Amino acid sequence: MNATELSALTIRQAADLIREKTVSPVEIARACLERIEQHDQRLRSYITVLSDSALAQAQQAERSVTRGESLGPLHGVPLALKDTFAMRGVRVTCGSKLFANNIPDYDATVVERLRNAGAVFLGTLNMHEFAFGVSTANPYYGVARNPWDQERIPGGSSGGSAVAVAASMCLGSIGTDTGGSVRLPASLCGIVGLKPTYGRVSRFGVLPLSLTMDHSGPITKTVADAATLLEVIAGPDPRESTCSSRPVARYSEDLGGDIRGLKIGLPREYFAEAMDAQVRSAVNAAVQKLAGLGAIVEEVSLPHCKYAPAAFVALAMTEAASVHAHNLRSRPNEFSAEVRDLLYMGLLIPARRYVQAQRVRTLIAKDLAAALQRVDVIALPTVTIPAPRIGERTAKLDGKTVNLTAALARLTLPFNLAGLSALTVPCGFTSEGLPIGLQIAGKPFAESTVLRVGHAYETHSPWRERRPNL
Amino acid sequence: MNATELSALTIRQAADLIREKTVSPVEIARACLERIEQHDQRLRSYITVLSDSALAQAQQAERSVTRGESLGPLHGVPLALKDTFAMRGVRVTCGSKLFANNIPDYDATVVERLRNAGAVFLGTLNMHEFAFGVSTANPYYGVARNPWDQERIPGGSSGGSAVAVAASMCLGSIGTDTGGSVRLPASLCGIVGLKPTYGRVSRFGVLPLSLTMDHSGPITKTVADAATLLEVIAGPDPRESTCSSRPVARYSEDLGGDIRGLKIGLPREYFAEAMDAQVRSAVNAAVQKLAGLGAIVEEVSLPHCKYAPAAFVALAMTEAASVHAHNLRSRPNEFSAEVRDLLYMGLLIPARRYVQAQRVRTLIAKDLAAALQRVDVIALPTVTIPAPRIGERTAKLDGKTVNLTAALARLTLPFNLAGLSALTVPCGFTSEGLPIGLQIAGKPFAESTVLRVGHAYETHSPWRERRPNL
Repeated sequence: MNATELSALTIRQAADLIREKTVSPVEIARACLERIEQHDQRLRSYITVLSDSALAQAQQAERSVTRGESLGPLHGVPLALKDTFAMRGVRVTCGSKLFANNIPDYDATVVERLRNAGAVFLGTLNMHEFAFGVSTANPYYGVARNPWDQERIPGGSSGGSAVAVAASMCLGSIGTDTGGSVRLPASLCGIVGLKPTYGRVSRFGVLPLSLTMDHSGPITKTVADAATLLEVIAGPDPRESTCSSRPVARYSEDLGGDIRGLKIGLPREYFAEAMDAQVRSAVNAAVQKLAGLGAIVEEVSLPHCKYAPAAFVALAMTEAASVHAHNLRSRPNEFSAEVRDLLYMGLLIPARRYVQAQRVRTLIAKDLAAALQRVDVIALPTVTIPAPRIGERTAKLDGKTVNLTAALARLTLPFNLAGLSALTVPCGFTSEGLPIGLQIAGKPFAESTVLRVGHAYETHSPWRERRPNL
Repeated sequence: MNATELSALTIRQAADLIREKTVSPVEIARACLERIEQHDQRLRSYITVLSDSALAQAQQAERSVTRGESLGPLHGVPLALKDTFAMRGVRVTCGSKLFANNIPDYDATVVERLRNAGAVFLGTLNMHEFAFGVSTANPYYGVARNPWDQERIPGGSSGGSAVAVAASMCLGSIGTDTGGSVRLPASLCGIVGLKPTYGRVSRFGVLPLSLTMDHSGPITKTVADAATLLEVIAGPDPRESTCSSRPVARYSEDLGGDIRGLKIGLPREYFAEAMDAQVRSAVNAAVQKLAGLGAIVEEVSLPHCKYAPAAFVALAMTEAASVHAHNLRSRPNEFSAEVRDLLYMGLLIPARRYVQAQRVRTLIAKDLAAALQRVDVIALPTVTIPAPRIGERTAKLDGKTVNLTAALARLTLPFNLAGLSALTVPCGFTSEGLPIGLQIAGKPFAESTVLRVGHAYETHSPWRERRPNL
């Protein structure tokens, strides 16, 4: 295998080939590092590349294979995480100037678990400053570019993660998702992203943005890879109070089942709203494909979800301002003007509005719970538009100019408000060659079902193998 | 039995005597109405006396007995509720001018259940305006007076309920408790009050003060009566989303068990803080009495509870302002200056502070949950001081002048923040003859345990029969 083939491997393929001694962890890590060298000056997906320590970890992994030691499920697999997970001895910036010199002396729970499973860490990935935005045009660490069209944004806030995975500069990543920050860039970059149920993955060692809506989840080339990573990172953590004590399912083993008779709900309100025509038709075709695989498709109604963006903004801005209030006062110039303005706005929101937003949130969660009593999963687009151009602030939909952030996050954020699991899987391309994502959301802690539906679709889709030309 | 004896009956005694046809519901209702006539001009516990409809209900109840119909557990028992529970065709003011002419066309769930159990409604009881205060010095419906010393407040916000029960102007009442509003007046008036677990009793038909901390619960002469009322009013209600679907225990049957080996936790922080010396010694003696009955007493630690008043104020003021925001704008002059000022302050609280208060709340709930893993119940005073004089704004404790509201509610409100069940039982009198209350708090939905401890104490206490001289 040449370097291009090695870096294009999925996590599962790589783990198997390493286990069989067909390829060495060092070869795969080198292939990824070469690709970073080759493309990332322009794509800006990495903040810190850990060439030396990654190669050292890979060599160590190679030795363990040679010695016949027992190997973890990610043994020798090169990953890179969003630059917000605490990693012992590594600079972790959270995409900010404020933390430009922050070197934690401990591992986030997610890092610890990936490390114990054998993963090799290639570096830390670019993100929107403090995860508080969706462009990943980072003023300190570079403007991340979409590998399908480098004049376009990759989405965010985990934009670097999506770019690095889509462009084969790592085999998989973990991002964070407060309003769509895993699913949105994964969708715009033509790969898979999963936001698990609230409480499924520990947030210990992750700088919060919004404590009631933050989630961590995998960004990968395939659904099977997302299942593999989730299996490693999920589960109880005494260090994190919102982390659930529920045992973890065997997500990767549950993938195989068929989806005959499984009920898929299409929310009529979403499909009635403004949306790019190519997105609409690709998602409709994907749902037809699922019906062809035996799923039963029916309409569901989510009448309060139209208020989701308003509620989300009040909650997220308030909670973010609460997290950053101290630094905002003592070190205001270490925030970009864009993020600082948002945080100042957050400080001014009256508590009464926050309380109202929480009540709206309850109504939205009830809509979704009622729909999910009738159906097993809900299917809808991940993003209403394909990747916009870098620097754009608005989008055109049905002839109207709309707010870009709302057009990007409107369909992802209801699942953060409700804490439900939601997956994005590539489901087509626009005529300009930009990826489109199908979103599949499920009941609390029903990641197995969500992944099974995504896997069934992916297995029968022509998009799985499609990669950007760089 | 004469009128004084009839009005002094407990709910259980009355229900039994009615069932045995020893006394008629009409006799008991008349006895209470006479007593209201005699004393309430001065004590001001009632807002509306429903003499005619109460007598009609009592006559109807008498006929059912005569005819040998099957009788509910409260058949013919005359009660009166805090003037905040919607009652079909009755003026329900919430202690306010704003609702001075409010006549609901439906029953609150609590009213419906009491009605179905056979209760007779004597009227609606005085309360602090909108339940937003602890004196029950109501500017529109009169200054309620403590029957043990009429120059002193009965406490609040359910002050009318406590006065009417203590002075035998009804056999029992239901109040609401957001920071202590059931337990505090019950304690200051020498009777029993129970705040059940959050979600145990439906709030449908009750004007909210603070949606995350409001509870409804019984105010009665005895613990057995509280158990009887709770059994009637508790349980699932599809009309109220925060109401739990857990089945209701047989509280009154569970009372009999002994308390040998049961663990009682004394929070060391509370007993170290400023507190009236007579309150401290009465509560200590009560706990010794429980130890004498076989309970095991040990210290527990609640380190974050000292922040409870601050967190409570931010949450309650914000949520109250959220409830009243519309009327505050359109009809500001129908609020008293006192309540209006509090609500305006609530409107100014920044959401960031509300979020901080929610985080403090989580820490307090964790303290209590940790303590309640070690012990079955927590025992402490209900109120740090005996009833203050009407019009006083401060209290003296250990030579220091302290805020009166904090001195009154400091020990009750942590259980509203955490949503746990908490009971107050009379445990002595000061040298001036003012009642002192013992508070017993338990695990979520462990009302049976809390009531059992209270009943065991009460059965062996000399205070049970003591009533104010009017």
